[in-house]
Amino acid sequence: MTSRREAILRASAAAIAERGVRGLRVGDVAQVAGVSPGLLYYYFKDRDGLLAAALTYINDRSRVYRKAADDSGSPREQLIGQLLAELENTPEMVENSLAWNELRASAVYEPPLREPLARTSRQWIDEIADAIRVAQVVDDVSRAVDAPQVGLIITALTEGLAARWLSGELAAEEARAHLRSALETLLPRSG
Amino acid sequence: MTSRREAILRASAAAIAERGVRGLRVGDVAQVAGVSPGLLYYYFKDRDGLLAAALTYINDRSRVYRKAADDSGSPREQLIGQLLAELENTPEMVENSLAWNELRASAVYEPPLREPLARTSRQWIDEIADAIRVAQVVDDVSRAVDAPQVGLIITALTEGLAARWLSGELAAEEARAHLRSALETLLPRSG
Repeated sequence: MTSRREAILRASAAAIAERGVRGLRVGDVAQVAGVSPGLLYYYFKDRDGLLAAALTYINDRSRVYRKAADDSGSPREQLIGQLLAELENTPEMVENSLAWNELRASAVYEPPLREPLARTSRQWIDEIADAIRVAQVVDDVSRAVDAPQVGLIITALTEGLAARWLSGELAAEEARAHLRSALETLLPRSG
Repeated sequence: MTSRREAILRASAAAIAERGVRGLRVGDVAQVAGVSPGLLYYYFKDRDGLLAAALTYINDRSRVYRKAADDSGSPREQLIGQLLAELENTPEMVENSLAWNELRASAVYEPPLREPLARTSRQWIDEIADAIRVAQVVDDVSRAVDAPQVGLIITALTEGLAARWLSGELAAEEARAHLRSALETLLPRSG
């Protein structure tokens, strides 16, 4: 990725997290990124193109943060750690979670967001389902667990708890404790 | 509730569901409700007061719809039926779910919404926790289930699945099937 393209996406993610999708002005993003509006339109075609690219960018960044989560435990512990990392109270994860939460809510009112949102969400569910299968192969998670089904459930639960955290209803550590407790039930150990 | 007060709240819920909190204009709501802006301000003081009252109104209406769900089964089946009713593809539930989903997402950007949102959400969690306890008393749900903890988890999961349904990622019947499957695990039968 060229650095100017990345600067535009970084500025978009920050703007969405701070003011919401509906307050996003292409001109403001270009200014913060230090590029001309013309260059932004050259890269992303229009506002919808920018939003779709920002969604992918935010998802990729979340993946990097998740991968950086503690990977020293068993496959099951690593999977749980990756999901808990979504509710991490660091500036990077807060910005990412705010932007993702807002993009999902805005898709109701901005139909062009729906297809890229569904695709990005599907990727995340698939990654979690793969991690469940890896844990099953080494008998760390029960083989009775339906990996794609439970992958969908635990990502939806993570989003539901993130929305309560971001709207100030739960502290990050409370949201994490609730998520861990649910994951213990939804991802039972083998045997 | 006077009929004019209710007309204002009904118009607010419809406007929030259709255009979002950030597109809500007090003058438009008054016009749709057939009242003067002065009367609206008399009842609700300001836009924040209107939003808080709309939140309570939407929550009360959801409770009525939930209670109308099939109540012929065991306490556990009734509880599951109440949660599944939140993902019902009827015009009333779609409007309620859209408005609730939008109020939760907007609370990030509208701090005055946070306290009424947290209070309303707490009421719902308490009602679900009570229903779990009722099912436990008659040995329909395992007593090993921590009612307030699981109440919080399953309401957050319901919201997470509703957000995917409302943004077009899941059909209502898919969201319901996933919720039912998760509830079978999170609300195990006794013995």
